[in-house]
Amino acid sequence: MSRESIFIAALRGLARDPAARDLIDDAAVLTVGGTALVLTHDMIVEGVHYLPADPPEDVAWKLVAVNLSDLAAKGARPIGVLLGYALGEDEWNLRFVAGLRDILAHYDVPLLGGDTVAGQMGTPRMLGLTAIGEAPAGGAPSRTGAQIDDICYVTGAIGAAGIGLAVALGERSGPASALAAYRRPVPRLAEGRVLAPHINAMMDVSDGLLIDAMRMAQASGIGLTIDLDAVPLAPACPDDQAGRIAAASAGDDYELLFAAPVDAMLPSFGDVAITAIGRFQAEEGFVLIDRDGPVELPTRLGYEHGA
Amino acid sequence: MSRESIFIAALRGLARDPAARDLIDDAAVLTVGGTALVLTHDMIVEGVHYLPADPPEDVAWKLVAVNLSDLAAKGARPIGVLLGYALGEDEWNLRFVAGLRDILAHYDVPLLGGDTVAGQMGTPRMLGLTAIGEAPAGGAPSRTGAQIDDICYVTGAIGAAGIGLAVALGERSGPASALAAYRRPVPRLAEGRVLAPHINAMMDVSDGLLIDAMRMAQASGIGLTIDLDAVPLAPACPDDQAGRIAAASAGDDYELLFAAPVDAMLPSFGDVAITAIGRFQAEEGFVLIDRDGPVELPTRLGYEHGA
Repeated sequence: MSRESIFIAALRGLARDPAARDLIDDAAVLTVGGTALVLTHDMIVEGVHYLPADPPEDVAWKLVAVNLSDLAAKGARPIGVLLGYALGEDEWNLRFVAGLRDILAHYDVPLLGGDTVAGQMGTPRMLGLTAIGEAPAGGAPSRTGAQIDDICYVTGAIGAAGIGLAVALGERSGPASALAAYRRPVPRLAEGRVLAPHINAMMDVSDGLLIDAMRMAQASGIGLTIDLDAVPLAPACPDDQAGRIAAASAGDDYELLFAAPVDAMLPSFGDVAITAIGRFQAEEGFVLIDRDGPVELPTRLGYEHGA
Repeated sequence: MSRESIFIAALRGLARDPAARDLIDDAAVLTVGGTALVLTHDMIVEGVHYLPADPPEDVAWKLVAVNLSDLAAKGARPIGVLLGYALGEDEWNLRFVAGLRDILAHYDVPLLGGDTVAGQMGTPRMLGLTAIGEAPAGGAPSRTGAQIDDICYVTGAIGAAGIGLAVALGERSGPASALAAYRRPVPRLAEGRVLAPHINAMMDVSDGLLIDAMRMAQASGIGLTIDLDAVPLAPACPDDQAGRIAAASAGDDYELLFAAPVDAMLPSFGDVAITAIGRFQAEEGFVLIDRDGPVELPTRLGYEHGA
């Protein structure tokens, strides 16, 4: 087991409350009074989740976006955030606040509080955010609810952020939209709220489409076959098997991945596609296919660090 | 202005929601459905809020305790926590979980979720926690409500953690109770809940009695005179003017500081004293006196970093 798995296995003993969802969902769902709250806390670390040279405005955007994306995956409406911030230089701090202002205004979410500590000079910056949302009336979907014969769907397109990271690293050129996808991901809040009543399980794609899809199947105790050819590729992703595998394991997409019955009447969104990419099955296991038949699973399906 | 003041002043523009309490209170108070929730997020940093050699069990205890103390100051009942954790070595991680288990069981609070990231080798560890509580029926007291002629009170005794820190640093000897006060502070949850309906303003003492009392007066827009001789000293604190000033500016006490009318019928607690230490006044300013008259304010009233 990895260091993280050992730690989380130990923590699970302290998370017996049903609200904790056994620490395997994207967020906790806590009922208070008559209201179900969705609570998530995600951190981002310089050099891991963003690059040292990324503009501080974009780092703030990303910190909030990755947390709102967890709310989106539970169909929740965001109602506030708390910030955990390690102070850096004044200019960086103030540019960070400007980015925070952008995204909080964009999604109409208030900053409620938090804490600041002195940053440690010369060490990678670490930032945390807690986001609080209100669950949809019918309850917050879990990632554990996928059923045998459900179709596996994904919103939008996959792979743009992976291209954007390579562009930011100077490894290749690419469209501005790819860099934006890496630095300013768009949480699918509206889509998550509309989808929630129609689906059996939902999560966001943060570590990579393949690893996250496998996690949904495992959490649901069933198997899943993904058709690589069906994965909706973002512009600039090479449309061959290697390119599709790269896109589907690159991570940072923040699209919604969900399971719905074959006969579900799914809503449609003007500018955001919904694409069927696979099917859940009784036999356990995670299988990849394309037009030519079974595809060997790549050694790396996505990021293992959790995000 | 300090780096932190500049940052927080900029953040205040994003915290216009009344739930944020202008970022000057210990916690946010958010009404959801019919329930008022109290939300706080505090971080602790190795070398700042705890010592590198402190046992990991105690670091976990302290991380939770400082957050529960903020809930106590709002009279709230804790209902869950989210952890933001930077992974270290397996042994440290598992001992941390053991300490977390201790304090969460002690206060019957579930772990709801959170995030882990890879810690950065050789850099000071940084840990965050979000605590969620339910506000008392009459509403959560603020630190801004002190009135002219209110008496300023503090629970328990002051200065033990300051002695404990010096003991932990090997600078002096002292009782085990002092070391425990530094490493395993006791949030005044029961006392906070009982006191809340009777008082005009309340906060916890984290950065130092003097600096925190001054902040309550400033936040309330009035003045305050503290009688140094009245400050309830913990065992082993030298009982002279220098010793009293040291105790009252050492911080990490996690007692409750509150303002109540002269004729308030205050509850009493068997083992936790309530001591009147001063009086709020119309004239702005923070004044220190003792039996001999005015005492010159020390240059340092407590920690400035926020906690």
